[in-house]
Amino acid sequence: MSNEKIPYKIYLEENELPKQWYNVRADMKKKPAPLVNPGTGKPCTAEELSHVFCDELVKQELDETTPYIDIPQEIQDFYRMFRPSPLVRAYFLEKKLGTPAKIYYKFEGNNTSGSHKLNSAIAQAYYAKKQGLKGVTTETGAGQWGTALSMACAYFGLDCNVYMVKVSYEQKPFRREVMRTYGANVTPSPSTTTEIGRKILEEFPGTNGSLGCAISEAVEAATSKEGYRYVLGSVLAQVLLHQSIIGLESKAAMDKYGIKPDIIIGCAGGGSNLGGLISPFMGEKLRGEADYRIIAVEPASCPSFTRGTYAYDFCDTGKVCPLQKMYTLGSGFMPSPNHAGGLRYHGMSAILSELYDQGLMEATSVEQTAVFEAAEMFARVEGILPAPESSHAIRTAIDEALKCKEIGEEKTILFGLTGTGYFDMYAYGAYNDGKMSDYIPTDEEIAKSLANLPKIEG
Amino acid sequence: MSNEKIPYKIYLEENELPKQWYNVRADMKKKPAPLVNPGTGKPCTAEELSHVFCDELVKQELDETTPYIDIPQEIQDFYRMFRPSPLVRAYFLEKKLGTPAKIYYKFEGNNTSGSHKLNSAIAQAYYAKKQGLKGVTTETGAGQWGTALSMACAYFGLDCNVYMVKVSYEQKPFRREVMRTYGANVTPSPSTTTEIGRKILEEFPGTNGSLGCAISEAVEAATSKEGYRYVLGSVLAQVLLHQSIIGLESKAAMDKYGIKPDIIIGCAGGGSNLGGLISPFMGEKLRGEADYRIIAVEPASCPSFTRGTYAYDFCDTGKVCPLQKMYTLGSGFMPSPNHAGGLRYHGMSAILSELYDQGLMEATSVEQTAVFEAAEMFARVEGILPAPESSHAIRTAIDEALKCKEIGEEKTILFGLTGTGYFDMYAYGAYNDGKMSDYIPTDEEIAKSLANLPKIEG
Repeated sequence: MSNEKIPYKIYLEENELPKQWYNVRADMKKKPAPLVNPGTGKPCTAEELSHVFCDELVKQELDETTPYIDIPQEIQDFYRMFRPSPLVRAYFLEKKLGTPAKIYYKFEGNNTSGSHKLNSAIAQAYYAKKQGLKGVTTETGAGQWGTALSMACAYFGLDCNVYMVKVSYEQKPFRREVMRTYGANVTPSPSTTTEIGRKILEEFPGTNGSLGCAISEAVEAATSKEGYRYVLGSVLAQVLLHQSIIGLESKAAMDKYGIKPDIIIGCAGGGSNLGGLISPFMGEKLRGEADYRIIAVEPASCPSFTRGTYAYDFCDTGKVCPLQKMYTLGSGFMPSPNHAGGLRYHGMSAILSELYDQGLMEATSVEQTAVFEAAEMFARVEGILPAPESSHAIRTAIDEALKCKEIGEEKTILFGLTGTGYFDMYAYGAYNDGKMSDYIPTDEEIAKSLANLPKIEG
Repeated sequence: MSNEKIPYKIYLEENELPKQWYNVRADMKKKPAPLVNPGTGKPCTAEELSHVFCDELVKQELDETTPYIDIPQEIQDFYRMFRPSPLVRAYFLEKKLGTPAKIYYKFEGNNTSGSHKLNSAIAQAYYAKKQGLKGVTTETGAGQWGTALSMACAYFGLDCNVYMVKVSYEQKPFRREVMRTYGANVTPSPSTTTEIGRKILEEFPGTNGSLGCAISEAVEAATSKEGYRYVLGSVLAQVLLHQSIIGLESKAAMDKYGIKPDIIIGCAGGGSNLGGLISPFMGEKLRGEADYRIIAVEPASCPSFTRGTYAYDFCDTGKVCPLQKMYTLGSGFMPSPNHAGGLRYHGMSAILSELYDQGLMEATSVEQTAVFEAAEMFARVEGILPAPESSHAIRTAIDEALKCKEIGEEKTILFGLTGTGYFDMYAYGAYNDGKMSDYIPTDEEIAKSLANLPKIEG
């Protein structure tokens, strides 16, 4: 089909929507390393994990072989509330850049959580409800995941307790208010409500908090109360499974119009969006059916892929979670306080880490002033004010499109626009006022943070 | 077609989108009263109006007879950025209410301005650019219109100066920051930058401001600078013309699926959304081709339809604008400071005022705690956190659906969901904290505010 006929926005029909998630591990010859129990040094059993996670989610976490997993009807129904998300042809951006590249983005921000996080939140809440639990606990950094989980819990009538990284809690009072509107309890982390929180506060008084801390608190809160489990918005295999809906819809929409991307770009913090977006494309690549250039974009201030080490590490600062083999900056790593938005996790999805290690995808890091410059340009031409996280992908998509212009190549670029920046105006304000700065950790800082990796052979 | 097959969301195809706006005045036998020059007491001429408004917009303002007006290609292109907006079947809300009613809403919030206001902003910016102007000035209350205009001006490279009602400016720093991200200059009103602003500040020191004040300032700023014109986001006939895109798309989507609404509901401040939503339906009603119950919903704290007078009045506090015959509470009316969100204008669109006066539509008023109660319910079941303004329509739609339940009637309800509440979390916070109160102006207050109407026979 000629590109002339491609609409600005492609919405799949409801009967074209995916009814199954795709589990990319099934097509990986070398699987990601297993989660390891820090006490025994051995792979976690389902039984061990079921103290922390819902049973069905444990099953999904450990399933490395089933390629397609049915999406329960109740979740499909909820998806109709905000899916399909549009695949947008960025005609306005292309024109602004004067590039021969064809740019598409999958926009996941058209729901109140403001991001793709709702895709997994509703699944995790559904399985918690099905198991008869009272509620769930979680952490949130920028606040997108916490909001998504609040919405999902409100829908199923579950209690929702969110530990919000302190710096975000303070910078984003309105994000907090959205969660409260959906009935969630929001606590700034580190807090005095958990043992680990009190310990961290003692050791680092005045800390801004980190995702790693907040995870520890949320896990402690879940495991110390009857009828509660912990849920996580990124990093885990189960989350990438649920997020595969992004890639499956993108691929279905592209296939419908005969479009084949050359380059696929996504921002990467824990890897939930990137893993979801690329999964069916990566599947083709793993099966030798197609080839794509796949680029993970991370902040220069939290560069786990580009400057971290591939090793077993703690998933949380409090060291209460299973160990995971991943690209990591060390579980004590805390991004500089001037770092705006999410993508502040010290590690990376085990699946993506393994794929990266196998050379199946690339990674790049970008500085935040360059990210906000791209965000502002995008907002002005495409009419969507992007989240700082998503803007990392925009930055790299623009850079790749400008390379196409330079060398006169008509590449097709697909990137994930994970969400909107309506609750990030504090950061936009700093940028507007010329007060935003960049921070790149020194080699010494990273080495120091990596000095305490656990001794597990991966 | 059976209702069983109606999707959750109906998106028109790009080739089904309206290419013309609809001018409901063409089908009105008795036309709205003309704008009057306060100096001469006579209908404003095009020449007089062209000092304030762009030439092409003056033409549209005065055109009472042309039923369909072409949407310029440049505006159609921009519309592709955020249109079509979805017509959503509120299956989740229906289920929650247990009503036999079928509820649909046209959702205009999926763009960064967060509301329908962008439909007219881009048209007004286009005509300003076409006329070779340097920039435009305007006022904004809740901030939706100012944001929309900032986006439109950024697109066409126009200078954009926004006078923002002081109470909103203070309550919504992030709304202001969005406008700045799109390059607009935002000034709290009343300000010392205009003569009228200084006069109002002298007379009412510590005032929270009002739309009427901000309009006066914006008009003064436009008419005292070379190459500038004033633009307005509601009330005017030209705005209702541009907003007819909402109703035209809604009707096309409903016709496509053989759906006929019994009741059409919209919130009403100045009337831009309501007028746009109902226009093609009202056209059928005026031509005797169909009948619909049409309900305007206004805040009990600013009840121009339900408690105002149909008379000529000033459109602004400073009395610098043309007079308009409309339902009004008096140009000095200021809603109580506890009033959250927009819908704070003292008057009402002349077109809607005349239609209401002819008995072609109804009006009702609702109190804000009831509005936020409806907003919260809607957010939780439909996944969209609505703007306080839009939630007035939700409140009445829910009430009508509950009446259907009571009497077992299967009515079809269409309402306008004008926008999202992401920048209204201050108000949601007050509601969440149980600190929101209602205020209904006394008869004496309204009588006092109406005592100074200009002496013009309408």
